[in-house]
Amino acid sequence: MDKRRIIIDTDPGIDDAAAISLAIISNRFDIRLISAAAANVDVDKTTKNALKLVEFFGVDIPVARGCERPLLHELESSPDIHGESGMDGYDFPEPRKKPLPVHSVEAMRRVIMEEEGKTTLVTIAALTNVALLFTMYPEVKGRIDEIVMMGGGIFRGNATSAAEFNIYIDPHAAAMVFRSGVPIRMAGLDVTEHALLHKDCLIKMRDSGRVGHMLYSIFSHYRDGDMDTGLAMHDPCTIALMLEPDMFRMEDHYIEVVTEGIAAGALVTNLERKMKIGCAPNVSVCMGIDEKRFEEWFTDMICR
Amino acid sequence: MDKRRIIIDTDPGIDDAAAISLAIISNRFDIRLISAAAANVDVDKTTKNALKLVEFFGVDIPVARGCERPLLHELESSPDIHGESGMDGYDFPEPRKKPLPVHSVEAMRRVIMEEEGKTTLVTIAALTNVALLFTMYPEVKGRIDEIVMMGGGIFRGNATSAAEFNIYIDPHAAAMVFRSGVPIRMAGLDVTEHALLHKDCLIKMRDSGRVGHMLYSIFSHYRDGDMDTGLAMHDPCTIALMLEPDMFRMEDHYIEVVTEGIAAGALVTNLERKMKIGCAPNVSVCMGIDEKRFEEWFTDMICR
Amino acid sequence: MDKRRIIIDTDPGIDDAAAISLAIISNRFDIRLISAAAANVDVDKTTKNALKLVEFFGVDIPVARGCERPLLHELESSPDIHGESGMDGYDFPEPRKKPLPVHSVEAMRRVIMEEEGKTTLVTIAALTNVALLFTMYPEVKGRIDEIVMMGGGIFRGNATSAAEFNIYIDPHAAAMVFRSGVPIRMAGLDVTEHALLHKDCLIKMRDSGRVGHMLYSIFSHYRDGDMDTGLAMHDPCTIALMLEPDMFRMEDHYIEVVTEGIAAGALVTNLERKMKIGCAPNVSVCMGIDEKRFEEWFTDMICR
Amino acid sequence: MDKRRIIIDTDPGIDDAAAISLAIISNRFDIRLISAAAANVDVDKTTKNALKLVEFFGVDIPVARGCERPLLHELESSPDIHGESGMDGYDFPEPRKKPLPVHSVEAMRRVIMEEEGKTTLVTIAALTNVALLFTMYPEVKGRIDEIVMMGGGIFRGNATSAAEFNIYIDPHAAAMVFRSGVPIRMAGLDVTEHALLHKDCLIKMRDSGRVGHMLYSIFSHYRDGDMDTGLAMHDPCTIALMLEPDMFRMEDHYIEVVTEGIAAGALVTNLERKMKIGCAPNVSVCMGIDEKRFEEWFTDMICR
Repeated sequence: MDKRRIIIDTDPGIDDAAAISLAIISNRFDIRLISAAAANVDVDKTTKNALKLVEFFGVDIPVARGCERPLLHELESSPDIHGESGMDGYDFPEPRKKPLPVHSVEAMRRVIMEEEGKTTLVTIAALTNVALLFTMYPEVKGRIDEIVMMGGGIFRGNATSAAEFNIYIDPHAAAMVFRSGVPIRMAGLDVTEHALLHKDCLIKMRDSGRVGHMLYSIFSHYRDGDMDTGLAMHDPCTIALMLEPDMFRMEDHYIEVVTEGIAAGALVTNLERKMKIGCAPNVSVCMGIDEKRFEEWFTDMICR
Repeated sequence: MDKRRIIIDTDPGIDDAAAISLAIISNRFDIRLISAAAANVDVDKTTKNALKLVEFFGVDIPVARGCERPLLHELESSPDIHGESGMDGYDFPEPRKKPLPVHSVEAMRRVIMEEEGKTTLVTIAALTNVALLFTMYPEVKGRIDEIVMMGGGIFRGNATSAAEFNIYIDPHAAAMVFRSGVPIRMAGLDVTEHALLHKDCLIKMRDSGRVGHMLYSIFSHYRDGDMDTGLAMHDPCTIALMLEPDMFRMEDHYIEVVTEGIAAGALVTNLERKMKIGCAPNVSVCMGIDEKRFEEWFTDMICR
Repeated sequence: MDKRRIIIDTDPGIDDAAAISLAIISNRFDIRLISAAAANVDVDKTTKNALKLVEFFGVDIPVARGCERPLLHELESSPDIHGESGMDGYDFPEPRKKPLPVHSVEAMRRVIMEEEGKTTLVTIAALTNVALLFTMYPEVKGRIDEIVMMGGGIFRGNATSAAEFNIYIDPHAAAMVFRSGVPIRMAGLDVTEHALLHKDCLIKMRDSGRVGHMLYSIFSHYRDGDMDTGLAMHDPCTIALMLEPDMFRMEDHYIEVVTEGIAAGALVTNLERKMKIGCAPNVSVCMGIDEKRFEEWFTDMICR
Repeated sequence: MDKRRIIIDTDPGIDDAAAISLAIISNRFDIRLISAAAANVDVDKTTKNALKLVEFFGVDIPVARGCERPLLHELESSPDIHGESGMDGYDFPEPRKKPLPVHSVEAMRRVIMEEEGKTTLVTIAALTNVALLFTMYPEVKGRIDEIVMMGGGIFRGNATSAAEFNIYIDPHAAAMVFRSGVPIRMAGLDVTEHALLHKDCLIKMRDSGRVGHMLYSIFSHYRDGDMDTGLAMHDPCTIALMLEPDMFRMEDHYIEVVTEGIAAGALVTNLERKMKIGCAPNVSVCMGIDEKRFEEWFTDMICR
């Protein structure tokens, strides 16, 4: 089977590590680039974490460093959530490889433009790098088949009650991406907060081998060892959405991003009341998830 | 037992009628005024509907006509939802009484200022009248013990994905009320969408007597006879919140109202992530409801 | 000659006092009400100052107290500019009359609705009272022939570089008035900063009698005695605009008011480039003034 | 005398052509790059126009093509003002050189980073390219001694009454540049509308030689031959500001850029009233110009 050519833009990050692990071990993707973004922690750390993961898996995936801050706002990262390094709790060796000598915007352009066929952008971080790519090199848009995104939420936020973290961090970049015309499939908080791993699965993973042990270690550190409540796997939903799309219930929506003011980072759509907002749908949004199946799929992937 | 002195600001409206009915038949309130607002339908109709309800119950509650449109926006009413009159489906006789000869802002001021003790404002409509009252007569604020409000939602909208209808219709008025310093208890979509009446209870109500029959008639017309899925009782949650507060799980939040742009009418609070937004809580918000108990309470109230 | 029936909404204030003086001594207006607003100083002081002026001139003009703060913002008054009382520098006796026992919104409604014919609103303060009047009693709009306003500026601000003080203080109220459909003639900073009184005229006024002496005293106190540079007569431009309209060069513009953000209080129009903004003109704006003629007219009026 | 190393970011454009001509013929600058921006006309045309000018002068200045549209907005260019090509009216031969094979953001980075010493950015277009440069490569900021900008205006707009065209076209990019921390000297409409060339000088230029003839031709085409009123030389003010700074009266201001809503593209500062806006000055703004001296300087430069 042909592998799907993807670029992952990411800020590892706990659940970023899980998503990247799934993408690698699935053996279903030709991961041509990992583009590191600033969000959960700073971009030097996310770049290093991406290199650590590549080295952990012994794969030959190039890593490029992206922008160090959002377009207009100051960076409000979350080291309190993702730990000092962004991936604390497992003793990764120092990576031997270096990031590419070019900015991730340049690196993405090359992957997308220098070969036949289309590339998928998997975005599990703030969208600064992707927004710059589309502005500098609009010719890439026709060579991207879709963006598969973790971000946003129709009915929930987590940075504020209105805004999900990846969108909140750089709402202008998100607006640029949502307006770009490139097809988007979005896994937002509406489903990712229900994409839970529970204790029994986590234990099973821990005891399943090297990868499960690594993920368990960073999850456990993140939770201070408390695994009694389910752990939300936000970013891995993008991998599930590509490999097992019928796990999700989708709706098409026209979505705008609030860029200024107290609701910055909120996504707005018009629902059934047909208020003033309205255009052709620009996003296919996950509105439901088969929670049990997700958990089984995730566990099987890691344990096999 | 002393009755609680209240003013109801309302735009009847299907569920407004239910809330007013509950307030009257509970016999626990001294309803000193019904102030009619424009929202679900225009203010002439909501004024007339309020008079119809007063006449239906044979009670002597003054009705005053309020503002005919929001402060800055055009009125976007919902006759498609609430029917031509706002209370179609039951053949109310023409009311014989007239509204008070003064604007509802003046009428509210008199009720609040001309007697000893405090008054509760029950708001189940857009907040234009209340915002004007507070601006013209700030001295009333010290004489209002609290506002019990149906409106908003921390995690849900219904006018847009971000904004609940009562706030959406006049976000500036809502912002003025949320900033007023008057204590607010808010039943928003987080609970009111779960405050459902199901078919068996509706049938029981229908057969219980005159009030149940009237409410069933307007509910049924609203639903085109389809009672198979639960019917959300948004506005009646305010009455439940005053009479049976332990039905609800409350959280204190600092809330701001978005007044401009695509997210106008959204409420924003900061959740646990402690992003930039933040002040002392100004609203006590219903975040959970005992759904079964609500339905039983509602049915018992109407059927007794 | 018939006198023109006017209501003056004002926050005296230095140049408010000059405008009211001109209106009274011109003998061309039937001033039916002075409505006091909060802006330059608080509304208790502006109400008292209006009463002092009425008493000073020995005329029988009712004074009503209006709103004590803007709709959504906190009041940012300017006692540093207008002095502690708002009209320091002249020893007005305590006024014997009281303000009307009703809010100025009610008082304005009565004047406008209870007689045949039309009334002119002369607004030389923030527009809170007028915005409330139009919202509570939209029927008054058809009975107002025009608003003659000091406020705004196409190309200048003075509160910020973008916003003139009267609009800045309550931009939401201003937006409501500009959208009201009532015809507006606006004397903004584009002309009022050129409506200057120079030292020789001021001295002439001072020595001309009781009124000139009073105005000179408050002007002089405001300027700490330094009369060497011209003194801008913002508010009196409204009186000049009614009595000597050909002193001004007018342009019709479609104007919107910025209500939120850093430019709050700015007026925006589209100029000749025909950018995205555009609707039928809603304001006739003074864009030029015959400076010499204004100064002569002002001086003659006071000295005669 | 050492020449000052500069990069010109430009969208020629009538007055862009004049500014570039002045920069070249002054022999005072080491122009290391002309970066073409989209604004007056599209970026393919501005790139070609830059190449035409380089060829016209027979100089060896690299030209790079920049972004083809603003960050968040659609491009609203002005071919009605600047003509079909942007530089109509003179018969430039087809340029033989090509633009650099890299994006102007990359080209700017190389010029700035690959040599000792500091570079000056002269920006006479919308700021999209510069905003991207600062976001992708923040390390350049320390190597730029200042930005000399034509754009904005404290008291005037020309796209709308509030916004000058260069800022209006991409207000988000402008906001990013104003917040960047790089020193800015700004020649805005406050002076550039007074930087006029009158008929006698234009005729003198026309008859002075090849350069004067070329500029006269495009000016004359732009004006449909009507040279009776003065012609504003917006962009050349940047060159004057570097070569003859004492022609200008400067003020330091803290300036913010409005990015959203009706006033998008406006600059806001707080003036003397000290309203809520306020930080340390980030821009040195031209507030006055010696008009006569400017015209003489311009004419002498072209005619010598």
